[in-house]
Amino acid sequence: MPFISRKAKAMPASPIRKLVPYANEAKRIGRHVYHLNIGQPDIETPEVVWETMRNLKMKVLEYSPSPGFESYRKALAAYYQNHYDIHLQPNQIIVTNGGSEALKFAMMTCFDEGDEVIIPEPFYANYNGFAVASGVVVKPIRADILNGFALPGIEAFEKLITPKTKGVLICNPNNPTGYLYPEAELLALRELVLKNDLYLIVDEVYRDFVYDGKHHTSVLNMHGLEKNVLVIDSVSKRFSMCGARVGVVMSRNEEVMSAVMKFAQARLSPPTFGQIAAEAALNVPNDYFAKVNAEYVSRRNLMVDLLNNIDGVFCPCPGGAFYAIAQLPIDDSDVFCQWLLESFELNNETVMLAPATGFYSSPNCGKNEVRLAYVLNKQDLTKAMKCLEVALQQYPGRVENAAAAQTVTI
Amino acid sequence: MPFISRKAKAMPASPIRKLVPYANEAKRIGRHVYHLNIGQPDIETPEVVWETMRNLKMKVLEYSPSPGFESYRKALAAYYQNHYDIHLQPNQIIVTNGGSEALKFAMMTCFDEGDEVIIPEPFYANYNGFAVASGVVVKPIRADILNGFALPGIEAFEKLITPKTKGVLICNPNNPTGYLYPEAELLALRELVLKNDLYLIVDEVYRDFVYDGKHHTSVLNMHGLEKNVLVIDSVSKRFSMCGARVGVVMSRNEEVMSAVMKFAQARLSPPTFGQIAAEAALNVPNDYFAKVNAEYVSRRNLMVDLLNNIDGVFCPCPGGAFYAIAQLPIDDSDVFCQWLLESFELNNETVMLAPATGFYSSPNCGKNEVRLAYVLNKQDLTKAMKCLEVALQQYPGRVENAAAAQTVTI
Repeated sequence: MPFISRKAKAMPASPIRKLVPYANEAKRIGRHVYHLNIGQPDIETPEVVWETMRNLKMKVLEYSPSPGFESYRKALAAYYQNHYDIHLQPNQIIVTNGGSEALKFAMMTCFDEGDEVIIPEPFYANYNGFAVASGVVVKPIRADILNGFALPGIEAFEKLITPKTKGVLICNPNNPTGYLYPEAELLALRELVLKNDLYLIVDEVYRDFVYDGKHHTSVLNMHGLEKNVLVIDSVSKRFSMCGARVGVVMSRNEEVMSAVMKFAQARLSPPTFGQIAAEAALNVPNDYFAKVNAEYVSRRNLMVDLLNNIDGVFCPCPGGAFYAIAQLPIDDSDVFCQWLLESFELNNETVMLAPATGFYSSPNCGKNEVRLAYVLNKQDLTKAMKCLEVALQQYPGRVENAAAAQTVTI
Repeated sequence: MPFISRKAKAMPASPIRKLVPYANEAKRIGRHVYHLNIGQPDIETPEVVWETMRNLKMKVLEYSPSPGFESYRKALAAYYQNHYDIHLQPNQIIVTNGGSEALKFAMMTCFDEGDEVIIPEPFYANYNGFAVASGVVVKPIRADILNGFALPGIEAFEKLITPKTKGVLICNPNNPTGYLYPEAELLALRELVLKNDLYLIVDEVYRDFVYDGKHHTSVLNMHGLEKNVLVIDSVSKRFSMCGARVGVVMSRNEEVMSAVMKFAQARLSPPTFGQIAAEAALNVPNDYFAKVNAEYVSRRNLMVDLLNNIDGVFCPCPGGAFYAIAQLPIDDSDVFCQWLLESFELNNETVMLAPATGFYSSPNCGKNEVRLAYVLNKQDLTKAMKCLEVALQQYPGRVENAAAAQTVTI
């Protein structure tokens, strides 16, 4: 029997999705599961998308061009200009199978096997998966929950730089922490990448979800980074259409875009239906995000308050995206999250969370942290937090290690 | 300025898509271009697909599960059983972003950087792209146009086997040659892979397009290969829905499927709309393929006859798929195909072909060959062949090197 590749053996299972069988089993026995484990918003996809799909006038479901439909790339360039004051040509945008493929193309274009990329941790778990798949070495740099997950000091980055370092990857606003990088931190990163001739890959898929009057700074608008910056974006979260599988990779570096184009050609094309839907979604009314964000802010406030009122729990209040990381009085978040699904119920309900261990690449980190996505309505969120509160009282592996953190204000 | 990866530099541009800018320019100046360069069928996507899309009753366009919707995988397992007598469990099928991603997952699961895979050439150009992207070394083995591209003798395979050889990859029926591998050749491959403990990856996306009363043998139905075989399939060609981007990778090897699942999780999910459309397409009436194949056979017969009647042209008659490779009296197929778009017209029309050089990985092969996809109606095919005939008379790089071949009958 032939053996599978070392790469396949080394691939991590998705920490977000590996608990799915336990959730399925809980549902099978009639238990209601509150899903705070995955960034699947319950916000309705804009009506204009459904209208467009109902009125499709095609006869043959053809391939799109490899970089995506030109009409969509043009409309997107106009959208970036109007909404974010980001000025791009359509040929500086290549459409991908979700943000996932955009990230993969970015990594494959910038890094060879053995090259190193610095990523502040905790980070989106699948960055690890893509790195393993392409043989890239992740050099994590710890962002601390006690600082609300602010960017670690640049001197900490400098210490990690070796001749193999080829880039820095961040997600802004951040998944899983919800942290919004202020301009000053991005300017510091700008100096770092220019000084060391690095790529700066920024995942901006949550750029529209920024709260409390704060402003999102896109690295596409930072002077002097034209050759260094690649940005990942997607319609998944923006328009609540995760299933469309339509993302983009964007750069002003021509050599980078020519290389991305070759990877894009090798997989033929991004999905036709998804692109048609995504192009339609660009026409949502202007007040769409105000409404959606008001909803997310009220959910965030509710959830973070409820969390911090639970004995032994600490959760910094995130400035963007729709995630929060909370520190819990537990021994092992993987065990706890599985226990929630297998052994706990409150009124025949339970809650599914993502263990934070999967968001760290340093060993033994995140064992007392979980990620929560506030993608449910407030009534459900309240019930889910009640589940969590009671579960923490009953959980056999409860430990009081989060107490110190609770005294910290950020 | 940071430099792009060696991998990105080494990536081949798609030989099928790299001529697109010349075609666009020809169209811009008002010239009609007959597209025989790409396997984008003009056959209408089944009406049941459009009906399903018009009646979507969703509110949120959600992610699907990473391996694809369970309902689709179950329906597909039943479809394989009913249509091909292939017996698979739904968990032996993982849904992918087109056959492209299925192939990528198969390669990443089976091969590490530096591992070798034997592929009869000419082969589907993007196999090269995927190999470069994953650092896998393609060992080509020449199939000869004078033998109608039959499988090279097994002793030729044996000669290529080294300690690094991990698999054999074929496409059946073949793209770009249209060759249908008879059971005897597959049995010979079976012995080879069992003896040498290799993976056998078979791209069967054209399995429904088999002509002249011949039978397609799936390696999924060959005894004793359960641990060795991975099969790639897709709805792109079957139901003329290339734009759905819905393929599958299938295997009875549990370790392989667990590894594929991890790669699938890392990119979250295949497209939701495409899967809904693909599941609907499984309900096409039974006579669908009889009609479609009758159309393809009459196109094939017309095109191959017209080709062989052109002075200096030789084209073996393919037994499946909807491609043919023709030998032309030309110096360089890349130059010729570009010349057709840039410098030739007949009644303000021209034809776009795929240079066969991109289907060989051995250097200097395919220089007097092109691939033609008979994906246009007979009237258009006739006009396209007239273009080709006149073009060959006018082409400055005409050489008579195909003459010998014309005397061969297969």
